[in-house]
Amino acid sequence: MERHFDEELKNLKQKLLQMADTAQGMIGLAVRALTERKEPLAGEVFALEEKVNAAEIEIEEEVLRLLAVRQPAARDLRLLTAILKINNDLERVADQAENIAEIAVLLLKEPPLKPVIDIPKMAALSQRMIKNGIDAFVKHDASLAKAVCEDDDAVDRINDQRFRELLTTMIADPKSVTRAVDLILVGRNLERIADHATNISEDVIFIEEGKNIKHHLQEKPEASS
Amino acid sequence: MERHFDEELKNLKQKLLQMADTAQGMIGLAVRALTERKEPLAGEVFALEEKVNAAEIEIEEEVLRLLAVRQPAARDLRLLTAILKINNDLERVADQAENIAEIAVLLLKEPPLKPVIDIPKMAALSQRMIKNGIDAFVKHDASLAKAVCEDDDAVDRINDQRFRELLTTMIADPKSVTRAVDLILVGRNLERIADHATNISEDVIFIEEGKNIKHHLQEKPEASS
Repeated sequence: MERHFDEELKNLKQKLLQMADTAQGMIGLAVRALTERKEPLAGEVFALEEKVNAAEIEIEEEVLRLLAVRQPAARDLRLLTAILKINNDLERVADQAENIAEIAVLLLKEPPLKPVIDIPKMAALSQRMIKNGIDAFVKHDASLAKAVCEDDDAVDRINDQRFRELLTTMIADPKSVTRAVDLILVGRNLERIADHATNISEDVIFIEEGKNIKHHLQEKPEASS
Repeated sequence: MERHFDEELKNLKQKLLQMADTAQGMIGLAVRALTERKEPLAGEVFALEEKVNAAEIEIEEEVLRLLAVRQPAARDLRLLTAILKINNDLERVADQAENIAEIAVLLLKEPPLKPVIDIPKMAALSQRMIKNGIDAFVKHDASLAKAVCEDDDAVDRINDQRFRELLTTMIADPKSVTRAVDLILVGRNLERIADHATNISEDVIFIEEGKNIKHHLQEKPEASS
């Protein structure tokens, strides 16, 4: 029975890894649709979004089944509830990537506004954050999870700077307004992806160290359970 | 033992109701800070955000404790995992309200851009959605939960229209750019609050009808558990 549960957990983690891979791939495709001006890549993102939605439901139902049938305690329980939350975060990452792809489709109807070097940079950072967050989860690596939280600050900094630049662009050239606002929204989407990766990492730190670092509260003793 | 568990669940629902009340109040205060140009109201929002963060952690730890100690099955299990998710959604609603209050503080440094009648309208709708979503949860009312999903379409429609209006304003008057972008971001925050209320309602429908309506998939038989 124990052996069987270990196997089930392993399969579940495998599904979560696949979902994270897909979500990461969607970020890359959506950003390339925008920066390389390739509309078909946006279409790939929309197709993958359906796949992620189906994976989310499948993983959630499997977690509920395991909670009911295996009645896990302590660490396994914490693991399963973390999977529920990570699953939810990954689905929202995919939603954000879908938003970027939708904006890309709109932007491709207009001439390019200006070089968007900061978008690929933010995208690469947030992809790395998702990857490291999930790796930290699978490899029980709390210090990798903490590195993800630091990357989040870098994403925020880049986004704040480009936000100000785009405001300046719009003020100087009213014809740029619609496109600049769209680029601001893409920045917000990438910022939110980074936030979801941060949530995942906080869950990992909670599992590994038994403490909740969310909202930067003081360390507190593990809940009695 | 059963009686005791019922009592514990009741207390937990009570805490969730309180948190929802606070989050709803924060939306109202943040929007009033902006529309009535009253900066102290933004300060109240920041104080309440701390309270919501503490409540989220408390509720999460209580759910984990109950899962471990009570080992609930079937319906109670689904209820507890839904509380975990609703808890998370409410905390994110509070985050969005905090964002609105932050933008309000910035906007109050400048003269008002134009009447913002659509913002109170969107805020009132999204507050009602949170209230109805939580009421649907506590009263096991799937049809109320479905009404919430319909309200979401109304919020999206209002937001799309004001988004287009604000683009037009910026194009006509470059001096309005910074303020108009801030107002666009407030609209996005309210739209996200409505999305969280929709998530909550989808969880309620899942508990009450045992099926997952997320992503508008076809009805599927209940997971075997």
